[in-house]
Amino acid sequence: MFAPVYLDWNATAPLASEVVDAMRPWLDGTRYGNASSRHEYGRQARAAIDEARTEVAEAVGAHATEVVFTSGGSEANNLFIKGAAACLKAGGIAISAIEHPCVREPARQLRRLGWSLREIAVDREGRIEPVSWAATLAEQPRLVSVMLANNETGVIQPVDELAAEASACGALVHTDAVQALGKIALDFRALRVHAMTLSAHKIGGPLGAGALIVDKRLELSPLIAGGGQERGLRSGTENVAAIVGFGRACELARARIETESRRLAGLRRHLEAGLRTLGARVFSSAAERLPNTCFFAIEGLEGETVVAKLDRMGFACASGSACSSAHPEPSHTLLAMGVSPELARAALRVSLGHTSTQADVDRFLATFSHLSDELKNLTAVAVPLN
Amino acid sequence: MFAPVYLDWNATAPLASEVVDAMRPWLDGTRYGNASSRHEYGRQARAAIDEARTEVAEAVGAHATEVVFTSGGSEANNLFIKGAAACLKAGGIAISAIEHPCVREPARQLRRLGWSLREIAVDREGRIEPVSWAATLAEQPRLVSVMLANNETGVIQPVDELAAEASACGALVHTDAVQALGKIALDFRALRVHAMTLSAHKIGGPLGAGALIVDKRLELSPLIAGGGQERGLRSGTENVAAIVGFGRACELARARIETESRRLAGLRRHLEAGLRTLGARVFSSAAERLPNTCFFAIEGLEGETVVAKLDRMGFACASGSACSSAHPEPSHTLLAMGVSPELARAALRVSLGHTSTQADVDRFLATFSHLSDELKNLTAVAVPLN
Repeated sequence: MFAPVYLDWNATAPLASEVVDAMRPWLDGTRYGNASSRHEYGRQARAAIDEARTEVAEAVGAHATEVVFTSGGSEANNLFIKGAAACLKAGGIAISAIEHPCVREPARQLRRLGWSLREIAVDREGRIEPVSWAATLAEQPRLVSVMLANNETGVIQPVDELAAEASACGALVHTDAVQALGKIALDFRALRVHAMTLSAHKIGGPLGAGALIVDKRLELSPLIAGGGQERGLRSGTENVAAIVGFGRACELARARIETESRRLAGLRRHLEAGLRTLGARVFSSAAERLPNTCFFAIEGLEGETVVAKLDRMGFACASGSACSSAHPEPSHTLLAMGVSPELARAALRVSLGHTSTQADVDRFLATFSHLSDELKNLTAVAVPLN
Repeated sequence: MFAPVYLDWNATAPLASEVVDAMRPWLDGTRYGNASSRHEYGRQARAAIDEARTEVAEAVGAHATEVVFTSGGSEANNLFIKGAAACLKAGGIAISAIEHPCVREPARQLRRLGWSLREIAVDREGRIEPVSWAATLAEQPRLVSVMLANNETGVIQPVDELAAEASACGALVHTDAVQALGKIALDFRALRVHAMTLSAHKIGGPLGAGALIVDKRLELSPLIAGGGQERGLRSGTENVAAIVGFGRACELARARIETESRRLAGLRRHLEAGLRTLGARVFSSAAERLPNTCFFAIEGLEGETVVAKLDRMGFACASGSACSSAHPEPSHTLLAMGVSPELARAALRVSLGHTSTQADVDRFLATFSHLSDELKNLTAVAVPLN
């Protein structure tokens, strides 16, 4: 089988073998059962979910009763925004200008219900911009959502400080920690948010599982109402296999995080040094970032074209945000950082993970160097013809 | 491993081995990828989803472009009710009195937004009651949802006729076909509804996949908004493995449905003949029912107690609706049919499936006969002591 070097871990990560082992009995036909059933099959399913709930909670410094399992990060983000808004009078919601679409779109949907939406600006490095933040607080929004780490740049926001300030102004505060989980240490209490979104498939867990970690004082209306599972906050027969895999992936991530974040930061340093010699601009390099994420551009190249060429040459990486469906527009994160649309269209993201090696990075650099020379020459030839 | 005889297929079904085989590459670490990614991994994921979409569509007489994948039936039901309501002015919503909670609860949530809710009565057999139906139509509801087959009684409603009448009165019509799929032939066009809910795990597919089949003329607002997957109607990274398994399960169900429905109807006939000799009342036996479902009661027994005892004796079955979380109340379906709360508390559901055998039914009947004698004697002794 053709297996390109996988450098797109922020889009999704391969299942960790330990996760596969944990899920196997629930996927090979050995174990099954509706966790609400009052018989042996149901009880086994319930016990497996309870165990996973504890594993997820322990990985992020939360209590098991604060974990609401969802089908993934997008659902958890929608659950917070729509679910919290449904329990409040219409007012203001503030989100950062660089949120993932699954925060931005539900926030926009709230406008139909009489809410006003403010997007909090970021600076040239992609960090929350203090003047815009102060203006946001002055408006006393009822809901605030600022992502912990950006999926494209990897920039980490000081969510603990922002949450304390926003809470003091009366806001309910949420953070999308999907990209942070497994890459930096996470502590729900220390972050001082009311709710936090997690996803399994970004950390070697399965697709189909995520969670909203919820402070129990937060009132939420369920997005998916029905049988009353997950303390009435998320109905639907629990996806036992996915939840079990999510728990195991959280345990693994917690055990590995120190060594892995050091190792990946080293690989990225090597990658970015090489990219700079090729004339690349590395975005957000002056900001605190996730250790695995490198977002960069070389003026004049076209990101989509480069991704397609790299794919054929055996490297899987991303141009814009690979989480969302096909959009030809340049990254809204880069535009919010004041990057020109031209340079934003040149952007490429390399995101590393547990199986990434120094050899992968070296091979990528060699190939990319060759490719960028070739494309620059093409551009140089093409320009006089215009 | 202790493996009781599984007689709770309406709660969830074991994964079919063919489904396990189809999902394996996506779960053993061989294949992975975000279907939105523009590289080999992403394209493979996208192709697998496209293939499954066709399989699901073909199983229910729909077009692939009408399939909106969700995390399951509960989400699909919520998507229709909340998503269609969000595109309409507040008005009336009518649902049958025997809907699953994941239809009833979102319908109740609409009341907060100014909608009025009518529950359409059923007769003693659990069929839509004509006078209540006529009164419903006279109110010209904007939304109507009537399940195709009930999860407890197995009663099949004449959804095609109801949908034609309700549509003629200007309603958008939805049917929850979760329990019907794989047990009776399904044809989206012939049902004449605007939307139909399906779930994978009731037919030997995995937990974590379902679909709303949507007539493209129906305007829907997404429940989970974000990256724009599923034509903007359901955002979130697609759960490739689960979707692939859902597709394979639909193919299997379609291939097996004729022989299986005949075989299961025969097993059930045998089961119900045996139960009647023990003095059981079989609910809805005069109505058209799913071939696999038997809902019955013996006056004076306590359903929950019997389920617990049967579990210890090696049989997994259900008392009330096993899909929902622990509720001590008697089945709302039976109460809507005019069954007394006492008899409703005695109700037991045996639901059969692909691996169920005549020997399973015989063993169940022998055990249940013994148990009901024992419990009746206990009751007979206990009564004079009151």
